[in-house]
Amino acid sequence: MATDWSELDLIRLFSGKTGALDGPGLIEGIGDDCAIFKGPEGSNWLVTTDMLVEQVHFDRSWHPAHLLGRKSVAVNLSDIAAMGGTPVYALTSIALPEKIDRNWVEQWSAGAAEILKEFGCTLIGGDTVRGPALVINIVILGSATQETTLLRRTAREGENIYVSGNLGSAAAGLEICRQPVLFTSFTDEDLAPFKEKHLNPSPRVELGQILAASGMVGAMQDISDGIATDLAHICTRSSVGAEIKAELLPAEPALEDVCRRLNRPAVELQLSGGEDYELLFTVRQGRDEELLSLVQERNREALSKVGRTVAGDTVQLRSADGFSDIAFTGYQHSGSSG
Amino acid sequence: MATDWSELDLIRLFSGKTGALDGPGLIEGIGDDCAIFKGPEGSNWLVTTDMLVEQVHFDRSWHPAHLLGRKSVAVNLSDIAAMGGTPVYALTSIALPEKIDRNWVEQWSAGAAEILKEFGCTLIGGDTVRGPALVINIVILGSATQETTLLRRTAREGENIYVSGNLGSAAAGLEICRQPVLFTSFTDEDLAPFKEKHLNPSPRVELGQILAASGMVGAMQDISDGIATDLAHICTRSSVGAEIKAELLPAEPALEDVCRRLNRPAVELQLSGGEDYELLFTVRQGRDEELLSLVQERNREALSKVGRTVAGDTVQLRSADGFSDIAFTGYQHSGSSG
Repeated sequence: MATDWSELDLIRLFSGKTGALDGPGLIEGIGDDCAIFKGPEGSNWLVTTDMLVEQVHFDRSWHPAHLLGRKSVAVNLSDIAAMGGTPVYALTSIALPEKIDRNWVEQWSAGAAEILKEFGCTLIGGDTVRGPALVINIVILGSATQETTLLRRTAREGENIYVSGNLGSAAAGLEICRQPVLFTSFTDEDLAPFKEKHLNPSPRVELGQILAASGMVGAMQDISDGIATDLAHICTRSSVGAEIKAELLPAEPALEDVCRRLNRPAVELQLSGGEDYELLFTVRQGRDEELLSLVQERNREALSKVGRTVAGDTVQLRSADGFSDIAFTGYQHSGSSG
Repeated sequence: MATDWSELDLIRLFSGKTGALDGPGLIEGIGDDCAIFKGPEGSNWLVTTDMLVEQVHFDRSWHPAHLLGRKSVAVNLSDIAAMGGTPVYALTSIALPEKIDRNWVEQWSAGAAEILKEFGCTLIGGDTVRGPALVINIVILGSATQETTLLRRTAREGENIYVSGNLGSAAAGLEICRQPVLFTSFTDEDLAPFKEKHLNPSPRVELGQILAASGMVGAMQDISDGIATDLAHICTRSSVGAEIKAELLPAEPALEDVCRRLNRPAVELQLSGGEDYELLFTVRQGRDEELLSLVQERNREALSKVGRTVAGDTVQLRSADGFSDIAFTGYQHSGSSG
């Protein structure tokens, strides 16, 4: 989910004070999609958590309870996918306002239970409390093979960068839900893929597992804050730079039309719209073809090459306007129409 | 923490829909202090989570940020203690209102980091988001020896019931913080143990480990909702009844005086005030003396025998007024003075 200053801050505050940031069997602490600790028989445990707050991360007025239940879990499953893991256990905590409808709670939990079941994940705990606002906190524990667990910090210079699916669709879907009046001239069929991507994202768990098992991926993470920020995480952690090309960023065919109605450049939503929940990864030099045919054989997910890692520490976008530095920010448009 | 209807409901909603409530290596799912799954080399992983909401579970106007940071972690450590476990990893998530003071966040995290360090627990993740209200969600992963992990469901008929420390102090401390004007005639020294218990509870981790390792305990859990509710959990899960005696419930010497000012019977706070974070356990028949001397040797925590398990399915309190059923409710006083 999108985060503000406080996430980095809080972690910094903690790291200064907890002394050693390691524990028995700890492989990765803070700084990747999941923390990793040693599991049984050559496996790793992965653990991730996300907190979702009403009016910050979702809006009940257009988000059906059932789909929000699914999404609450899906955003966490996406972190497991980003390491090539398999979801195993879940904890669901929720603060419920007193005025909330019982039916809403039933539909939300049915949606959460449904996606947990689809991904073979068992609910083992949680907490339900009263609150002034609706707040959802999900924890997923997953497992991965020790040798193939994919990290952010293992990209090397000169590797091609790929993404799964399309970028910017969820951000466009959010705007379509928020301002439906702008889109009355569109057919339901045109709008469906954008709304689906915002309301009911599919975590790329199977694809993540295939990529991890292939041994051909350099580094991987999921795209939750937008590729501009998430690629910068890989680069910072791997001590490399990156160049991506605007023309290579994959999009739904109708994204340009939707963005024209929003009066925003499509590339802005693709770079920093966030909530894509696609996978972002680099491929070891010379292995592209082999990996692409492996994925094509095993999984229907589309993959797009969007750029490559380079020497240095900047994340640059090459577009018709030349180069611009996009690390942690995204597209800085100078006007209203791009 | 105190919970309302929705906790039981949500879990029921989920259990009907997730299909099998088991997973690979799952030993206990929902229904005990922690979920348990198989760890390495004869050990178990324990996992617990609690959500704390401002104005429901704490009040910033009297709860110093540093102590609230400690307590946010402590209430979860208490669940690990209840199974005889050792805390290992923590995840801390927090929703912060925009208007919150940076200094408050620093002190809260310093308090949380401090107690994590004291208990050898490593922070491995979390989430920080913006929210309309302050909401804290902590997850602790602990480990325990497989053979000695203590559950709620293993009490047998005819076992004596014990509690550590005193009961009702935290509930009294909450009232002292809430209505300080009632207690101006008390000395700071009189009030200190009550306030400390409310503001900065000590999880009984070491005691829990000693009790678990002893092999002499029948069933155990921590007292978070008050002994009336928590003993009912042990009884329900173990298919036994229980009788406890009001005169045996341990209390701070000044509890009677504090309760007189509150115009509430002390026994009400002891039974259902909640937030004691003491341990409640049964002792295998004939092992009381041996266990008590073991604890005395290894740990200074006071233990009090408060009753015994019996045939049946009721939890009864024996007091000067006779017997009353207290399961899941606590003391039902008929008047204002008791």
